[in-house]
Amino acid sequence: MIASERPPVTRWLAERASAIRFADLPPAAVTVARQCILDWFAVTIPGAAEPAVQILSEELLSDGARPAASLVGQSGRSSAMNAALINGTASHALDFDDVNMAILGHPTVALLPGLLALAEETGASQDDLLAAFVAGYEVACRTGALMSPSHYGHGFHATSTVGSVGAAAACAHLLKLDAETSAIAYGIAATKASGLKSMFGTMCKPLHAGMAAQNGLLAARLAAKGFTSRPDALEAPQGLAATQSADFNPDEAMRDAPLDHHIANNLFKYHAACYLTHGAIEAGKALREKSAASSNAIQSIEIRVPPVADRVCNIAKPQTGLEAKFSLRLTVAMALAGRDTSGIATYADELTREPELVRLRDMASIEFVDGYPEAKADVAITTADGRHFTASHDAGVADSDLVRQGRKLEAKFDALVEPVLGAATATLRAALTGLGGDAGVSAIMKLAGRAQ
Amino acid sequence: MIASERPPVTRWLAERASAIRFADLPPAAVTVARQCILDWFAVTIPGAAEPAVQILSEELLSDGARPAASLVGQSGRSSAMNAALINGTASHALDFDDVNMAILGHPTVALLPGLLALAEETGASQDDLLAAFVAGYEVACRTGALMSPSHYGHGFHATSTVGSVGAAAACAHLLKLDAETSAIAYGIAATKASGLKSMFGTMCKPLHAGMAAQNGLLAARLAAKGFTSRPDALEAPQGLAATQSADFNPDEAMRDAPLDHHIANNLFKYHAACYLTHGAIEAGKALREKSAASSNAIQSIEIRVPPVADRVCNIAKPQTGLEAKFSLRLTVAMALAGRDTSGIATYADELTREPELVRLRDMASIEFVDGYPEAKADVAITTADGRHFTASHDAGVADSDLVRQGRKLEAKFDALVEPVLGAATATLRAALTGLGGDAGVSAIMKLAGRAQ
Repeated sequence: MIASERPPVTRWLAERASAIRFADLPPAAVTVARQCILDWFAVTIPGAAEPAVQILSEELLSDGARPAASLVGQSGRSSAMNAALINGTASHALDFDDVNMAILGHPTVALLPGLLALAEETGASQDDLLAAFVAGYEVACRTGALMSPSHYGHGFHATSTVGSVGAAAACAHLLKLDAETSAIAYGIAATKASGLKSMFGTMCKPLHAGMAAQNGLLAARLAAKGFTSRPDALEAPQGLAATQSADFNPDEAMRDAPLDHHIANNLFKYHAACYLTHGAIEAGKALREKSAASSNAIQSIEIRVPPVADRVCNIAKPQTGLEAKFSLRLTVAMALAGRDTSGIATYADELTREPELVRLRDMASIEFVDGYPEAKADVAITTADGRHFTASHDAGVADSDLVRQGRKLEAKFDALVEPVLGAATATLRAALTGLGGDAGVSAIMKLAGRAQ
Repeated sequence: MIASERPPVTRWLAERASAIRFADLPPAAVTVARQCILDWFAVTIPGAAEPAVQILSEELLSDGARPAASLVGQSGRSSAMNAALINGTASHALDFDDVNMAILGHPTVALLPGLLALAEETGASQDDLLAAFVAGYEVACRTGALMSPSHYGHGFHATSTVGSVGAAAACAHLLKLDAETSAIAYGIAATKASGLKSMFGTMCKPLHAGMAAQNGLLAARLAAKGFTSRPDALEAPQGLAATQSADFNPDEAMRDAPLDHHIANNLFKYHAACYLTHGAIEAGKALREKSAASSNAIQSIEIRVPPVADRVCNIAKPQTGLEAKFSLRLTVAMALAGRDTSGIATYADELTREPELVRLRDMASIEFVDGYPEAKADVAITTADGRHFTASHDAGVADSDLVRQGRKLEAKFDALVEPVLGAATATLRAALTGLGGDAGVSAIMKLAGRAQ
């Protein structure tokens, strides 16, 4: 496809995003946006204690910038740019944050940290924050769809790259930039978009989320002041898609769909392990309930998942808590044995040596099924008395019951936040579940910090 | 090539760079390093007035960071991180800075800004600065060679991407990090490495140099504090080379060669136009001298250059000063007509409409010769009296006479800096040509600022 024939995806996305008004949002989109934000605080507040975040904070806070934006789960404040990078890193440090398959990555950790810092600094309303979040979410998913699946497949961490463009869209919306200027902001973010998937397992993985947040914030602010870039950075020859992807799907990126199309597919994590273990864990939990079998009655375990899981979460004999999170066999063993899979403290090194779990783990066989949906799993067990049970779960399908989803997220919030914030947890939860209206976000940000 | 067979390029580069000591540097390397630094100040001081730099400075200085590092050509000071980004952008804003063909990009604008800010903040000596610069230069060129030519060819702005790794190496050296920690710093820089060539012609092009400088600075500082990344980021599966290049040349990257091998090939710009016009301009100047022909005596002009020039600097009928810089025909016309090609004010829109130049421009024909060196040009003219003259110049070959090169660079420095700094120009030039010893850089940085 030559340059002049390439459809103007960047401009189309910018037109669509900049036209979004809070009053026009489908109620379901607002509900899910609130849930994304609630869940972001749930994972960020404990994530702030992780070493990656502490090192980064120490380094960046030494610059002594004006305290314009709050650090979540910490006591300090800094510039909006520093807060975006630090809070973004904190929010992905536990790898317990939400997912969207159109991005093949994590939307909220990329979109929200810079947007929150900007909203806090500018005094934007909570309604403005929600509308900007949905706008950014749209652009991120459509940019992801433009370059899927080869962008991620080739080794780019889409959370960071695609997330940079989405974050720029969110911040551009909050700053009320017009479509032309928004497209320029997307371009600045696109030329800053980086992040190698080979960094998984190092502190750079969570850093990537912070990079996306900070890239988007800077891009929108520079564009607002007249800094120039290309208005067609996504589709241009030697633009983002051309350099970082073999796929180019403008029809998917510009698909006619309502504003809650992508956000309705947001997937929350309820287990503190790799997302591609979630289907198998859920199937395992269902089998435990259905069979009422004690773990020592189980004689065989068969797991069927798509081939992608082999590259991502097929550590056969994990030796550390971190490896356990990427082991289908061990996480299914945990589910069948009735262990808690949701607690962040569960995944300790000792867990991998428990005889009950090791027995189940080594009994499990895995079959990789071509063409299976990315997050789907079947699990089958046989018990000592010769009974056979099967269960399936597709973790790639969002919960259609938003009330149930909200309850589960509030429970997750309490479990993660209470150990850090104590009594303030319920107040913060109430503020987040009721997010909206003309008030700004500073009261919320204050609640989400740690007392000094 | 599978993962385990990939030679450990990153570690090899880190070992070599961290072993560099000022006392062991070949004198020629120190001389060229000093010239690179002199030339960097020459282009950065006037570059700071460009709109891209003014917008960026206004945005970043609003964060109120502690004034730890100076802004060159401006009156303000800011954090080292902000200074790296702002000064890096300023130094590439005129596109008049040095080049190395191993990178297919601009070394000093990527390497020096973060290093200078770090040296200023930490009080490092000028000898330390020179040694760190050479270390970074080595790593940048070898990283460039690892991924050439497809990395740049595919659309990545190597100044920014390769430059990020080089800048990390320079800063890691100044911080005296060991090889293991240096390799981690290269990894953090690699995962932050971005920059789209499609942004040429926008403010993002100079921003890319600032990004490289800032990426390298942050990477080295984080690695020093224990932040983790991969120790093999350049060669890892889904690492920098695998994601951003079809080429992988470890033999070139780890080539046995003295420490001044790459820096000796540093190419300075003496014409304020695209580097790929330099060979043709020099040939044109030689023809004017050789033929002693007035421009209206010239009846035909033939230019022979490699095919790469067609994609980069073949604007046939430029309409603006910026387009003139990317027009072989017009710049050769300027050389043949005896016009100044070195002044930054020369390239005004009116220049493109001058009848004398338009006549020569439209007379010129261009032949693209496969296999020609990247920066070589032949120019031939015929005069009204039937005489024929030819001249060739390969701008890809560095001047072997370092004394002559130094004189030319001092003249360039004076021409660029005097209009901004006035009487302080000579003092700053003397400080830079005599760079070295135990003193720090703060006196130099003070001279390079504008009085408020």
